[in-house]
Parts: sequence; structure tokens; C-alpha cells
Amino acid sequence: MNTIGLVAFALVGSSKAIREEFDVFGIIIVGLAMAFAGGATRDLLVTRVPLALQSPVEISLGLFGVVLAIVLSVFLSSPDTHPITLVADAIGLAAFATTGAIVATEAGVSAFGVIAIATINAVGGGAFADILLDRSPFILFEDFYASCAVLGGSGYWIVGTVGMTESTAAVMCAVVTVVARFAAVTYNWDLPTVQNIGLLSK
Amino acid sequence: MNTIGLVAFALVGSSKAIREEFDVFGIIIVGLAMAFAGGATRDLLVTRVPLALQSPVEISLGLFGVVLAIVLSVFLSSPDTHPITLVADAIGLAAFATTGAIVATEAGVSAFGVIAIATINAVGGGAFADILLDRSPFILFEDFYASCAVLGGSGYWIVGTVGMTESTAAVMCAVVTVVARFAAVTYNWDLPTVQNIGLLSK
Amino acid sequence: MNTIGLVAFALVGSSKAIREEFDVFGIIIVGLAMAFAGGATRDLLVTRVPLALQSPVEISLGLFGVVLAIVLSVFLSSPDTHPITLVADAIGLAAFATTGAIVATEAGVSAFGVIAIATINAVGGGAFADILLDRSPFILFEDFYASCAVLGGSGYWIVGTVGMTESTAAVMCAVVTVVARFAAVTYNWDLPTVQNIGLLSK
Repeated sequence: MNTIGLVAFALVGSSKAIREEFDVFGIIIVGLAMAFAGGATRDLLVTRVPLALQSPVEISLGLFGVVLAIVLSVFLSSPDTHPITLVADAIGLAAFATTGAIVATEAGVSAFGVIAIATINAVGGGAFADILLDRSPFILFEDFYASCAVLGGSGYWIVGTVGMTESTAAVMCAVVTVVARFAAVTYNWDLPTVQNIGLLSK
Repeated sequence: MNTIGLVAFALVGSSKAIREEFDVFGIIIVGLAMAFAGGATRDLLVTRVPLALQSPVEISLGLFGVVLAIVLSVFLSSPDTHPITLVADAIGLAAFATTGAIVATEAGVSAFGVIAIATINAVGGGAFADILLDRSPFILFEDFYASCAVLGGSGYWIVGTVGMTESTAAVMCAVVTVVARFAAVTYNWDLPTVQNIGLLSK
Repeated sequence: MNTIGLVAFALVGSSKAIREEFDVFGIIIVGLAMAFAGGATRDLLVTRVPLALQSPVEISLGLFGVVLAIVLSVFLSSPDTHPITLVADAIGLAAFATTGAIVATEAGVSAFGVIAIATINAVGGGAFADILLDRSPFILFEDFYASCAVLGGSGYWIVGTVGMTESTAAVMCAVVTVVARFAAVTYNWDLPTVQNIGLLSK
């Protein structure tokens, strides 16, 4: 699952950079940033050297996603919104949220810490890629996306707290995240803004 | 003081996100980012796990600020510029600068390090929130704001260097920061740009 | 070389902030961010307290670059594109890439890690300065700039792998980076975008 996630995230990041007419170096960096910045932030928060800097396998998967984005851009105008990419991206989201929850639990942080690190691991890369592309992170004002990782991380923590094993918690986190994401895409879920729910004065 | 600061910072961050029509998730994230990103950066710089990930109390205060922003947005068009918020924000600025200076001194960094970490702790959250909102951090081109934290951090270091106790230094830092900020708001202090002071050629 | 780099980077960062009409505080911060953010990120990635917070000498050099930018802005409309600045900047790029490669090797990361940290150390400051100025990092869509650091880092790793001493590797890294950068400026090298090489559909 992590494998699928790395490739999918790098593919989505690179596709965005191609659309913005970044040069080849920029395309590689935005793709790798999307794939690895979440995990690197997670590792920094629990103060260890980012895994991505130590494992050649992970980087190769990221680079494969970048190449895939360049090749696909010849045939498709936006490979990052293709249904297969959406599925792969949802799987990646779940895989990354789960890894984040596991690492956070090992680091002994609070319940909020577990959910926060699961979410940062899952969506931090996408947010950072958007900052590099000079726009607000899309996860903040659009879509039921990061919320899936929040639900997954909460699932992990609840299952862990009631005394079940870590692997049960991991499965729960992955399933909750991916099911929530599929439901969100299928039924077009959206979180309301304060304006939408008619709360805002004037 | 730290309590007031966390609530005030989360309130200001969330109010900005509401104005930009972010969804509920975005409002929570920008609020929490404003309240905690400065402290998290401070902890990363001295390589320890961010306190915010370990303490449920701090997070609850941040979330309270977020809720407050949403509730107040029903009655006020910009709760973040209300006089009470400005006062709470100034207190938060002083509290955060002081915490930063204390943590930095414990980590044994240089005089510049103490002032830098005090300033980053105080204004890093606001700067990060602005980056998430896709604009230049307001502290960089407007207002006598971050400069108050620089003055406070310098005060801390001077008092510490002449041999007085850490708590005297902490009081000095907090007082200098909050007085400078109140003066800046009252008298509309502003740092000049190079253009303003007529230095720039052409 | 590191000395020249710190001054040049701070000068370039501050010049950009002056052009954006930031106030004096903003000019100092963007200049220091450009000079030190790359090195600080490098230190965070290998989990140690950033050197810049511990060494008063380095900070003084950065501040000297900031002052230089303000003074020069009186006589020149853009001191950051002056030939002397370009040369100093190229030397800084090489110095920073080399320091990054050395620190990364000591931290025992993979080949990719060495190249990544060399590049981040060299161009991370410039990228962060651009984010503060609310634009996409220029290194991502323009110029053969970061690529020089990638080449230099690769040179370091290759020389190290074939069994030569660390100082030979360091010299190789610095020479490759600076020569590549001079060649890029002289011959107007540019990396293609996917659009340029005619790959993109439609």
C-alpha cells in the first residue's frame, strides 16, 4: 500500500508542476516533495532522521511516479484526476495515515499527537507541494480529503485505547481512511464553510 | 499568560481562514497552526518532540480559540481586530517570546539564538498561517509586531548576561514585549521601508 | 568560501525584500532566511541544533550582507543581479552544497540523501525566501541553478564511493558546482519544461 501511495503521490505532484510549466528539475522536486514531505515532517516531529533520506527503494518509487507523470502527460491532459489515480491516491492516503499513527504511537505522544501526525503524514506532502506551486494548500478549502486521515487516525487511537493489538489498529486506520475517501469521492462530500452554513453575519 | 496567548492566536488564525472561506477543517488547521507552529518550530530547532503533541491541555485551548472564532464570526465581521483580541494577542506575543527565550537558553544557544528562537516562537505561527493562506507573512511588511518579540528576547538576554536570575529575565522579556506592543498599537508605530526613508535610487 | 556565500545569499534575499517594499524587519528576516534556512533545514534533517543559532560569527556575516543590500540599493536598482553578486552567489552555492554533502555523509544517509541534503543546503534558503515573498521558489521553474548543486552532490558521492578521501570529494563537489553554475550563466543554460520539448498533448 505504501508503494502505491508513493507512486500515486509523486504522480499527482509532478502532474501539477507540469501544468504550471515548471522545468524538469521543478517537476522532480514537486513530485518528490508531495511523496516525501509528509513523512519527513513526521520524522522531524518525533526527532529522527527522515526515512526517505536513508532508503534508496522509497526514492526510486517516487522517481518512478515522476517519470509516469511525464509519460502520461503526453497522452492525457490531466493524469492526476484520472479515476485510477484517484483510487491509488486514496490508497496512499490510507497507507500514509496508518504509518503516521504507528510512528506517533511509538514516540509516545498524546491522542491528539497520534491523530495530528497521522494527518500530517498523509496530507503534509500535498500541502507542501501546493505551497511550492504558490497557492493555498487545496486540502484546506476543498473536499473531504484530509478529514479522512483525521477519521483514520482517530480510529487507530480508539482501537489502541480499548486494548486491541497494534495491527488491528493499523487495519482499522487504513480501512476507515480509504472507505471515507471513496465515499467522499463517490458522493461528493464536502465540509461546509462558515459562510455555507449561514452562520456568518452579513 | 500562555493560556491567553494560545486562545488569542487560534482565534486570530481561524478568523482569517473564515474570511477566506476555508472549510471547517481548514479553519481548524489554520487556527491550530497559528497557535502551535511557532512553538513546534522552536522545539524542532532545539531537537525535541513538540510539546503540543504531548499535552492535551494545550490543544484544548487551541480548539477553544477556534470555536470562539466561529461563534464570534456570527456577531462580528472581524473578531480578530477587536480591541479585546488585540490585547489578548499582545499578551500571547509576550508569553510566547518569553517561553522561547527560556527554552533557547536551556538549549545553550548563542545570544542571537536566544533572540531568534524567542521571535520564532512568538511570530512563527502567524507567519505559517499566512503562508497557508497564500500570502506573504504580514509580520514582514507591516506593523511593529515581530520587533516587539525581538526587543523582549534582547531584554531577556541582557538581564541574563548581567547575572540576574532566570525569572527576572523572564519578567523583563514579557514586560518589554507587551509594553512595546501596546505602544506600537496606540501610537501606530511602523518600521520604515527603504523606499520610505528615501534611500532608494530612482 | 562559506563566508562569501553567507554574505552573497543575505544580500540577494534582502535585495528582493527591498524591491517588494518590505519594512526593515522584513528585509532583515528575508536576508537571514535566504542565508540560513538551507543550513538550518540540513541540521534539522540530521536532527541537530542549527549551527546558525550557536555561532555569532555566521550571523554577523549574514547581517553584513543585509546592510550591504540596503547600502547598495541606494546606488544600484538591483544589486542582486550585478555580475559580482552572481559570482559570489555561485561561490556560495558551491560552498553550501559541499557543506551539505559533508554533513549528510557524516549522518550516514543514503546516496540520495547526500545529494538531497547538499541541494537543500544550497538552495533551501532561496526557496524559503521566495515563499516568504509569496511566490513559487524561482529555482523550480527557471534557470540551471539547483541542478548545479545536484551535480556537485553527485560528484561528492561518486568520489567518496570510489574510495578517495573526504577532502578530495569536497573539492570535487565545490568545483563541479561552481563550474556548472558559471557555464549555466555564461551560456544561458536552462532546463526544458515538458511543454518546451513538445511532449505535452495538445
